[in-house]
Amino acid sequence: MPTVPSTLSAPYNELTRRLSDLTALEEAIGILSWDQEIVMPKGAVEQRSRQIATLSVVRHERLSAPDLAELVDQLMHDQTLTDTQAANVREARRDLMRTTRIPEALVRRWSETTVKAHDVWVEARKADDFSAFEPILTELVELSKQRAAAIDPEAPPYDVLLDEFEPGTTQAQLEPLFADLKAFLLPMIAKVRARSQAGGLPDTTWLSEVVPADRQRTVGETVVRAMGYDFDRGRLDTSVHPFCGGAGPSDVRITTRYREDAFFGSLSGMIHETGHALYEQGRDLDLADQPVSRARSMGIHESQSLLWEKQVGLGRPFWTALLPKLQLSYEFLRKVDLDSFLFGISQVDLDNFIRVDADELTYPLHVILRYEIERDLFNGTLQVADLPKVWNAKMQEYLGITPPDFRLGVLQDVHWSMGSFGYFPSYTLGALYAAQFMNSCRDQVPGVDAALSRGDVEPLLTWLRTHIHREGSRFGTDELVRRATGEPLNPRHFIDYARAKFTRLYGL
Amino acid sequence: MPTVPSTLSAPYNELTRRLSDLTALEEAIGILSWDQEIVMPKGAVEQRSRQIATLSVVRHERLSAPDLAELVDQLMHDQTLTDTQAANVREARRDLMRTTRIPEALVRRWSETTVKAHDVWVEARKADDFSAFEPILTELVELSKQRAAAIDPEAPPYDVLLDEFEPGTTQAQLEPLFADLKAFLLPMIAKVRARSQAGGLPDTTWLSEVVPADRQRTVGETVVRAMGYDFDRGRLDTSVHPFCGGAGPSDVRITTRYREDAFFGSLSGMIHETGHALYEQGRDLDLADQPVSRARSMGIHESQSLLWEKQVGLGRPFWTALLPKLQLSYEFLRKVDLDSFLFGISQVDLDNFIRVDADELTYPLHVILRYEIERDLFNGTLQVADLPKVWNAKMQEYLGITPPDFRLGVLQDVHWSMGSFGYFPSYTLGALYAAQFMNSCRDQVPGVDAALSRGDVEPLLTWLRTHIHREGSRFGTDELVRRATGEPLNPRHFIDYARAKFTRLYGL
Repeated sequence: MPTVPSTLSAPYNELTRRLSDLTALEEAIGILSWDQEIVMPKGAVEQRSRQIATLSVVRHERLSAPDLAELVDQLMHDQTLTDTQAANVREARRDLMRTTRIPEALVRRWSETTVKAHDVWVEARKADDFSAFEPILTELVELSKQRAAAIDPEAPPYDVLLDEFEPGTTQAQLEPLFADLKAFLLPMIAKVRARSQAGGLPDTTWLSEVVPADRQRTVGETVVRAMGYDFDRGRLDTSVHPFCGGAGPSDVRITTRYREDAFFGSLSGMIHETGHALYEQGRDLDLADQPVSRARSMGIHESQSLLWEKQVGLGRPFWTALLPKLQLSYEFLRKVDLDSFLFGISQVDLDNFIRVDADELTYPLHVILRYEIERDLFNGTLQVADLPKVWNAKMQEYLGITPPDFRLGVLQDVHWSMGSFGYFPSYTLGALYAAQFMNSCRDQVPGVDAALSRGDVEPLLTWLRTHIHREGSRFGTDELVRRATGEPLNPRHFIDYARAKFTRLYGL
Repeated sequence: MPTVPSTLSAPYNELTRRLSDLTALEEAIGILSWDQEIVMPKGAVEQRSRQIATLSVVRHERLSAPDLAELVDQLMHDQTLTDTQAANVREARRDLMRTTRIPEALVRRWSETTVKAHDVWVEARKADDFSAFEPILTELVELSKQRAAAIDPEAPPYDVLLDEFEPGTTQAQLEPLFADLKAFLLPMIAKVRARSQAGGLPDTTWLSEVVPADRQRTVGETVVRAMGYDFDRGRLDTSVHPFCGGAGPSDVRITTRYREDAFFGSLSGMIHETGHALYEQGRDLDLADQPVSRARSMGIHESQSLLWEKQVGLGRPFWTALLPKLQLSYEFLRKVDLDSFLFGISQVDLDNFIRVDADELTYPLHVILRYEIERDLFNGTLQVADLPKVWNAKMQEYLGITPPDFRLGVLQDVHWSMGSFGYFPSYTLGALYAAQFMNSCRDQVPGVDAALSRGDVEPLLTWLRTHIHREGSRFGTDELVRRATGEPLNPRHFIDYARAKFTRLYGL
């Protein structure tokens, strides 16, 4: 098995052996989870939960073993390790700390409450009844505060939660970023709204032409393959909620769904999941069983899906190559020219309440709304009971619309029912990173757009492989971004990109 | 989760909790193995081996925990347990003993050697070169002797190996059984040969009519469903080697292959695997996570597949109901009457060298040949180097044919390359049990054949559910058979069945 190149450090070799076992357990859980979504018979649900829970307990026990902690502590002071080895130890230490510091009673209560909360949320959403969800959501907020205090009693609780998905990222870093975004987005959306009300924009009815699922599948597989996805180390299936899962870089499985009256949404979703998959398939195979090869963070993961879905997959070069091919398969597109096509696939939907359906311009405001609510919940200035009121007020303030019910408002997302507080910012961090990476790639690889216009992703993919995928968790997020782009995260790249793009599309 | 109904015995509850975890680990391995055969991308082979090996090590560690052994020892003397609970403790003890008595160094050497041996066997078979396989086969025989000595130094080694697949079965029990079988089969086959040489038997060319795979699938699924297989707790897929796998009674997955010029072989294979699957699906669901609910032995498992494939699936009642339906789908069968059909599907192939392709009458001789070779290898009266010579001599003696090469002879089976010595007898034990069970069912449920003639498997399935499936490992094999049929294993049932059947089919 590939492991970190051996030095003479026996303790380090012992650590890699144990981390490799932990990786194998995580990968086994990955396959059981994929199986559950894609092929498992419905009668096996209960037993599958038991199987996954058992593997999770085994993983937790092994990660919590006192001698593993001693080994890691010892290696944290080992000056003979290479940089990569030291990074591997650092990532292992992070896993250990986030796992072992939470008391067992809290782990159990957390597990029981989240399982219950998911069912409660499903029912509350069905009944459009926030009050049914409120008590258990209140409990989850309280338990999350306890988890945060257990992991790091010194840090503000919400920072500890953010750190789970974006290691090292704090509220103090997000505030100015999101302030900049709001300052750009609110007036920009107002201009788009005014322009839309004036009428005369390109026809986009072709977006809802019916395309049978099997034809979408053929086209989709061609696009996924052309993006560099390796079908020998993955597979493409159909599921209700598209995702990228599997077991390590040699087994990266993506799923999609085919809506016959929304072919572009399906294709775009496949491009998104392929972006995630390319990141996983591009990890350092020689270190695949070690934490140092893992994706850096949720935000960096989302940067890879969004770079392909938005920066590339809504862009002129990509469609210069692909639209003529698509027109061969989909006859109704033959009357749509490239400019109309690009307008249609990027148009802003000003009446949309749902985050997952949002366009590039409104999406960050959906995230900022949730971020502000989470921040205030954990800072104690907002009570769970007030969420619907605050949600709707912010929707009106940021997007000019008020949800008619809870389903289209505060009850729309699954995240809180899973106790995933601090996750939402990753989506928008991903969009910002994506714009910054794309700009740097264009600077460093001058032919990248010309290649895309010929249907050749190789220069782009090579840049991503080198600067992002293979780097894994070798560096902290800031350092990764700095090495790839010459500066830390800078929202200007996204703002400039979006301003130019929507100014052009809407003739502002 | 279902566990054994609680008594006040805290140690017993602790045992069931730990056995339940072990079951979950075994089930997880079951899903990873199924995934590997059916859906896994080919680039994931190496990592999948790691995942399965890791779970196997975890299982071994948990099973070997000293406090588990203490718990089991304590409960072996607990007079307050119910019969089922005591049986559960007995089965757990068996698992422990077979696992923990083998020294770790031997476990590792065994694992390394079997992995290597499989590759060597594949290559040797391809090259038709027994001498390439001989050294590692010799090593496997030696390691098997060491394993047997570690598990039970008092017993003859081959008995310890048999016990792995057929708990409690010994060479001393097999000898008279197999002697009876030989005494019946050799003259019976000679008579069939003479009758075949005389000519004038029914035409069977319709067996090789081409049927497209998708039509075979439709028919096959209908038959599998009609047999009572629950698709909500299983699924049917395609694989190179058909098998029944999955994860416990709520997730029993079968596979098949479709040969377009051999529709009956494919259908018969599906019926066989469904027989295995009905056993698994019929286990006691309230005890599904405990060893006491497991299938009693390989021989009893094979009795269930063979009861459906042969006793039922080659029989007049079953085809009275099904042939008219099959004739609706397969036009070429409309000219074949029921008697000709029954002759065709049961005819004896006197020129066949391959065990897995053998008919009901020659199959036991393929098994007896292997049994005698294994017996003599482990008793020290036969050397590995002499296997080809002995194999061919026995083939000539028992079946009147000599394999032209090793591929059709001593190198045909995968079992020895996996170190599975002592497995082969289970196939023939299964055929004997199947005949005995079918006879008892007919005695106890007089309408069973009439129901089958109407396409109704319910009376038969209910009998199997009650007497075999739900009983699991509650009793030893002898006791299970005695309770179901009123007597221990008796080869007369098979012999009488086969004599009557082939005398009738061949007009002897």
